Amino acid sequence: MNTTEFLAMQSEYSAKTKGAKDVIDASFPLLQKALKDVLPNFDQTVFGLADFGAADGGTSLELMLKTIEQVRSTQPDLPIHLNYSDLPENDFNAIGRMLNNLDGKGMSILGKYPHLTVSSSPVSFYHQILPPNQLTLGFSATAMHWLEFAPGNIRDHVHIAASQDEEAKTLYRQKSHTDLVKILDHRANEMQSGGYFLLVNFGINDKGQFLGNTEGVHMFDRFYNLLSQMVAEKKITAEELQNMNFPQYYRSKEDYHAAVADEQLSNQLEIVQINDLHTPCPYREAFRATGDEATFVESYPGTLQTWSYQVFYVGLSKERSETERNTLVREFFTRYEQDIRQRPQEHGMDYIHHLVLFKKK
Amino acid sequence: MNTTEFLAMQSEYSAKTKGAKDVIDASFPLLQKALKDVLPNFDQTVFGLADFGAADGGTSLELMLKTIEQVRSTQPDLPIHLNYSDLPENDFNAIGRMLNNLDGKGMSILGKYPHLTVSSSPVSFYHQILPPNQLTLGFSATAMHWLEFAPGNIRDHVHIAASQDEEAKTLYRQKSHTDLVKILDHRANEMQSGGYFLLVNFGINDKGQFLGNTEGVHMFDRFYNLLSQMVAEKKITAEELQNMNFPQYYRSKEDYHAAVADEQLSNQLEIVQINDLHTPCPYREAFRATGDEATFVESYPGTLQTWSYQVFYVGLSKERSETERNTLVREFFTRYEQDIRQRPQEHGMDYIHHLVLFKKK
Repeated sequence: MNTTEFLAMQSEYSAKTKGAKDVIDASFPLLQKALKDVLPNFDQTVFGLADFGAADGGTSLELMLKTIEQVRSTQPDLPIHLNYSDLPENDFNAIGRMLNNLDGKGMSILGKYPHLTVSSSPVSFYHQILPPNQLTLGFSATAMHWLEFAPGNIRDHVHIAASQDEEAKTLYRQKSHTDLVKILDHRANEMQSGGYFLLVNFGINDKGQFLGNTEGVHMFDRFYNLLSQMVAEKKITAEELQNMNFPQYYRSKEDYHAAVADEQLSNQLEIVQINDLHTPCPYREAFRATGDEATFVESYPGTLQTWSYQVFYVGLSKERSETERNTLVREFFTRYEQDIRQRPQEHGMDYIHHLVLFKKK
Repeated sequence: MNTTEFLAMQSEYSAKTKGAKDVIDASFPLLQKALKDVLPNFDQTVFGLADFGAADGGTSLELMLKTIEQVRSTQPDLPIHLNYSDLPENDFNAIGRMLNNLDGKGMSILGKYPHLTVSSSPVSFYHQILPPNQLTLGFSATAMHWLEFAPGNIRDHVHIAASQDEEAKTLYRQKSHTDLVKILDHRANEMQSGGYFLLVNFGINDKGQFLGNTEGVHMFDRFYNLLSQMVAEKKITAEELQNMNFPQYYRSKEDYHAAVADEQLSNQLEIVQINDLHTPCPYREAFRATGDEATFVESYPGTLQTWSYQVFYVGLSKERSETERNTLVREFFTRYEQDIRQRPQEHGMDYIHHLVLFKKK
């Protein structure tokens, strides 16, 4: 068992997001491209490496170790600093445990790599996280599709990507642009001239596909339909459903180009490359390969709750007790699980990502 | 209620170590002295501030905020980076909560001070924690008297400062020198030229006094005597008592001068000033002022357990179950509390510190 497998086993979050790990692995070639450009002429005193929206750090660990080893292969004594950041509510103790127990037997990342230092920052990527000019190679996976906040209610859906509400679509598109410019402006301040930032992000591809909406499967439509049923049954109110809005935006390639063309960024950043990435749902793939429906029905729903529970909870009226709100969200997920049991073939959540490689001018 | 009082209330660790807070407050004049020297000619891009052995960050917060404000008063836009480090087992989530809730109402340190970034590092001060040349002003309070490990058993005591065992004393003195040189060598690597490190550390003063051993009160002797009673009663074995050794060393002023004279450090660091600090036990002082014996007996013992429990636990035989070992340590503390109840006037724990201000050449 290698380090990453060990960590995936240890970490509940990482286990529930096996797909995220597959995506990160697919990103290594772009990081290698950046390293190939940066390393030969590197003249800064510290190589700064960072993972933004790192959660427990489990999914990106192998990528980080590979990157450190690549830097080491040409610059054996160059100081490297690795920073993990996420929202203040994140479990930073889990990151510390991982860094100090790489192999499950107490092997520390500091013992493994001399001249490496590490830190974590309980700071959202909507703020500047690192001091200026200290970031050589930044990385963020499946995090920056989260808007700072939902700019308004979506009248016909829970997710703007699946909505036909033109007014809301304009509002979310504008907010997405402002937010992306803000995020990238902070990263540009952190980056060294000639440094790179690889943004691996949920998006909408040229076929119009996005998370869970491929091959006739429409995850967000299922969410909305089941919630509408709960409204029809007077379990929740229409107003509550209105207030359930994923504060997310799945950007197109054009959206990234528009961001770096913004006057705030045009002198700072350029896009080197944008790749499409379609990652088949690992749960459904295993189900197709083995035919093991029971495992699918049991394991797949967990991967959804981690990132959607809070959105449904927040939409429910504050006049309800916390217990009542939790009970209702759990009832929604129970209905969703029943739906999966009834027609397992029609479920699954393919990932649609863009891999966007930015360079600091 | 000011920020610090709020935090002291919130944080159990900080409340139990009110004395530590008093010590930190007494250190501000030396930090001001360092700032007065550093600020007028500061030509680095980032002002690096760090607290080594920070625990939950509660006790040093006011000092850090005062320092940030002093930097801001002359350099309003200078980027400042603040790092908190402690052992990997420390609760880093508590530090994040504090930084994001300065006033208990969600005020963030980042909102309060523009151009400030923060991080924490789950790394012992026996390692390099920050990248080279990034530390302008380092601070550590009541942490670096801990040796990397106990270099051997003390035959006649639990603490080397109270021992007459010449062999052990030599062993601990040598280990203390090696450890201090190692700690300071890492700090010197982190420091910018002209930067400062203020080490506020338990020590032994010119009168031979040290923690809890002033005014006829001998805390460590009480520890040893009560444990010896438990040996006599066959509650624990003589071997177990032998294995209870505080991995600590209370250094004299000469020990600090010897460290910077070591060939590893002599080209890097100089001592600018060493101050003595005698902080009366805050629990006993309150008891003397109010005569409230009940509060003293109830609140004082808690301040001891935080840092001594583990030493007693580790000494007990591994052949005992965890439950048995915990029960025995609790029995020891119960006996200690009985002793306090029987003769409260003879208890108390004055702090004896040195404030050592180092400068990077």
